[in-house]
Amino acid sequence: MPSETQMKHHMQAYLDAFNRNDLAAVVALYCDDATVEDPYGTPLKSGKLQIEAFYRQAMSNGAVLSLSAPIRASYSNAAAMAFDAVIDTPQGETRVKVIDVMTFTEDGLFKSMQAYFGPGDISVPVVP
Amino acid sequence: MPSETQMKHHMQAYLDAFNRNDLAAVVALYCDDATVEDPYGTPLKSGKLQIEAFYRQAMSNGAVLSLSAPIRASYSNAAAMAFDAVIDTPQGETRVKVIDVMTFTEDGLFKSMQAYFGPGDISVPVVP
Repeated sequence: MPSETQMKHHMQAYLDAFNRNDLAAVVALYCDDATVEDPYGTPLKSGKLQIEAFYRQAMSNGAVLSLSAPIRASYSNAAAMAFDAVIDTPQGETRVKVIDVMTFTEDGLFKSMQAYFGPGDISVPVVP
Repeated sequence: MPSETQMKHHMQAYLDAFNRNDLAAVVALYCDDATVEDPYGTPLKSGKLQIEAFYRQAMSNGAVLSLSAPIRASYSNAAAMAFDAVIDTPQGETRVKVIDVMTFTEDGLFKSMQAYFGPGDISVPVVP
């Protein structure tokens, strides 16, 4: 099982790769048969191809992810983190308040990801 | 399915009930066949009796829960929140950094709870 330190390191690596728009580095954090449910309540993305397509789209709008609180690990193969995804637009800032939960393989790769946010966790610019 | 507002309200009610040491109110937020995995990676507590026993123990040390960031809802029957549990002792403060994920019944009761924190998320007083 990966250590707490390893899991937190990989969670931080995920944020860093996303924020430098490094699609390959984000996808490389997932194992081959990983699943992504982002947001929770929507169909699963399964496997590297679907996950890569999902992140290509997700990263195309220039969102920046910033932690709201320190990353949490666990007594088993999971970690969780609260963050905001912020997109600056000419009209102002769009902000999505998210909590991600990842489970891990023995090697410390992401086995599953679930992103918790709802419509009420998204704030959009007020355009007069 | 409960609304985002209802789910967030029940998450806040959970924090408030815990903080006023109201065991009955905490347990009443769970459905009869609910499960609690706190922390993630330890055996499930199942059903009201086990859940009540768990919270009686958990609340006996006077921990106070405070949100680290706003509660997140979802596009389905789940919500999540990051908080710190703080216990003041004569030797100083013990702090546990936690993320809870709850799923909900149709009626808005907790169906499951998973608490994410590991040994590294617990800080204890330094006693000279």
